[in-house]
Amino acid sequence: MNLPGKIAIMGGGSWATALAKIVLSTQERINWYMRRDDQIQDFLQTGHNPSYLSAVEFDINRINFYSDINRTIEESDTLIFATPSPFLKQHLKKVTTSLEDKFIVSAIKGIVPDENMLVADYFSEYYHVPINHIAVIGGPCHAEEIALERLSYITLACPDIDYAYQLSPVFKNQYLRNYCCKDVTGIEYASVLKNVYAIVAGICHGMKYGDNFLAVFICNAIEEMRNFLYAVHGLERDITDSVYLGDLLVTAYSRFSRNRTFGTMIGKGYSVKTAQLEMEMIAEGYYGTKCIHEINEKYKVNMPILDALYAILYERKSPMVVIRQLTQTFK
Amino acid sequence: MNLPGKIAIMGGGSWATALAKIVLSTQERINWYMRRDDQIQDFLQTGHNPSYLSAVEFDINRINFYSDINRTIEESDTLIFATPSPFLKQHLKKVTTSLEDKFIVSAIKGIVPDENMLVADYFSEYYHVPINHIAVIGGPCHAEEIALERLSYITLACPDIDYAYQLSPVFKNQYLRNYCCKDVTGIEYASVLKNVYAIVAGICHGMKYGDNFLAVFICNAIEEMRNFLYAVHGLERDITDSVYLGDLLVTAYSRFSRNRTFGTMIGKGYSVKTAQLEMEMIAEGYYGTKCIHEINEKYKVNMPILDALYAILYERKSPMVVIRQLTQTFK
Repeated sequence: MNLPGKIAIMGGGSWATALAKIVLSTQERINWYMRRDDQIQDFLQTGHNPSYLSAVEFDINRINFYSDINRTIEESDTLIFATPSPFLKQHLKKVTTSLEDKFIVSAIKGIVPDENMLVADYFSEYYHVPINHIAVIGGPCHAEEIALERLSYITLACPDIDYAYQLSPVFKNQYLRNYCCKDVTGIEYASVLKNVYAIVAGICHGMKYGDNFLAVFICNAIEEMRNFLYAVHGLERDITDSVYLGDLLVTAYSRFSRNRTFGTMIGKGYSVKTAQLEMEMIAEGYYGTKCIHEINEKYKVNMPILDALYAILYERKSPMVVIRQLTQTFK
Repeated sequence: MNLPGKIAIMGGGSWATALAKIVLSTQERINWYMRRDDQIQDFLQTGHNPSYLSAVEFDINRINFYSDINRTIEESDTLIFATPSPFLKQHLKKVTTSLEDKFIVSAIKGIVPDENMLVADYFSEYYHVPINHIAVIGGPCHAEEIALERLSYITLACPDIDYAYQLSPVFKNQYLRNYCCKDVTGIEYASVLKNVYAIVAGICHGMKYGDNFLAVFICNAIEEMRNFLYAVHGLERDITDSVYLGDLLVTAYSRFSRNRTFGTMIGKGYSVKTAQLEMEMIAEGYYGTKCIHEINEKYKVNMPILDALYAILYERKSPMVVIRQLTQTFK
């Protein structure tokens, strides 16, 4: 396995752009797949991503752009996926090239809808990538702060931790540190759950619950996350590590998180449908809620926060009533 | 033991005022000790505390005000202390009445300077209050949000948990819930440490570290707190409970915390002395840092954050250099 070999960034959004900036700080060249040719043309003309983190200047001589996903795959060894999870299937549908001998890094925080699958499992099951050749990136890392080169920390997880260590130098520079572990499944579920909890934090914020309550909410959310992760993947982990607690904090406290904003609108009285239309963006926690709720039918972990959000989003229960009941379960 | 019996609020600040509001929501009358007669006169004339939470209206017919601490003690069974910790000794110096048959509730978050003692230990050692008759109040609870009746949660701790349960109804109303436990020592140290960490959070904020970093900082701080608490008081506790993690969150994320503000000034380049003068308020974490640092000479817990702040505050080391070194220890 030639790791990292030639690296491709898969996706054209803000997180993909931040990852491209990072990888170019340690590697000579990258391949970069974006779906739309016009976005690539604008990028080549201006030297920056026309739509996301446009203040970040790139040396376009060090980038091979592709709008053809198969050519990107053929030309690369390590593929870093950073598309929003609801779009992943669409992109992958076009894939006819084999992924079996590629190394996949998922920077996608979310679940594959319909299949209700974690991204790593999806690559393994549908594209026959060996599970040891799939890593995930987690941790509290707003793309906007990477653009500003503010010191951040990520976690690289791979079942074979030696591969994570081999990837580590790719993601290490003066504004980025990383930590390696094996907990792919736990980190993937944590990434989904933090979006779920960010929506609930937003709902409470929209309903005028204050900072005292938010702090209590986070404590109850992290406990719920710990219990769920333990049930689905009974690895020994420290839930206060930054990849779990830190990522929850940065999402739930951020006023820029689209999941939190989506929740705030619901808390202020918008219907779920109206909030979705107004947002014009995908609040990934919307799908995550349904997914975890279904998965938990098997595990039956006590998850009052998840259940409350499911009742609001999918059973059209009154947020006021549901949240009031939820507060009774907190300590 | 007549618990709660007649209740006195000891102190005239914002937290004391919030506690008075809470206790009056469940009890018919309170005694209220304030040092200054003119503050009491203004209170009686206006119906609210002239200096703190002045939007909170009180029914003054249900309050007995005292500026004489000994008379307050004589007339009360349960004394709720809510003075800033650096002033506690001054108040208590005037005490000639016995405290031995009183029940003490400490709502003081901090350490008794000079003695380097926890408040509960101070009452026990110098005023011979049986340790089972001393409870502490902890948890994420800005007084300003109590004034607005925003739902909050506190924790009541007493070595004899039955006393905590007996106190519980005093602090339970439509905007306040509580939880009882035995971990007096852990909660007291956690209250000191969260102020220490809030100063460091402020320093980092002042130095333009961002939200990604703050989240990582909190994760490392809560781990440091867990290790210290375990060393000094090896009780089984869940560090993600709101009285530990929640209180740290509400303090470190709050732009109104004086500890964080004190830190922010240092991070922006003010000298420690100038920051203290500008503040005109006590940043309790300043004393807490020295205290925990001295206590930890015995326990030798690995505490890079505490040591960094000690170096900045007491050894006049450059915040820039110290914080940069500190970030190397994080994960």
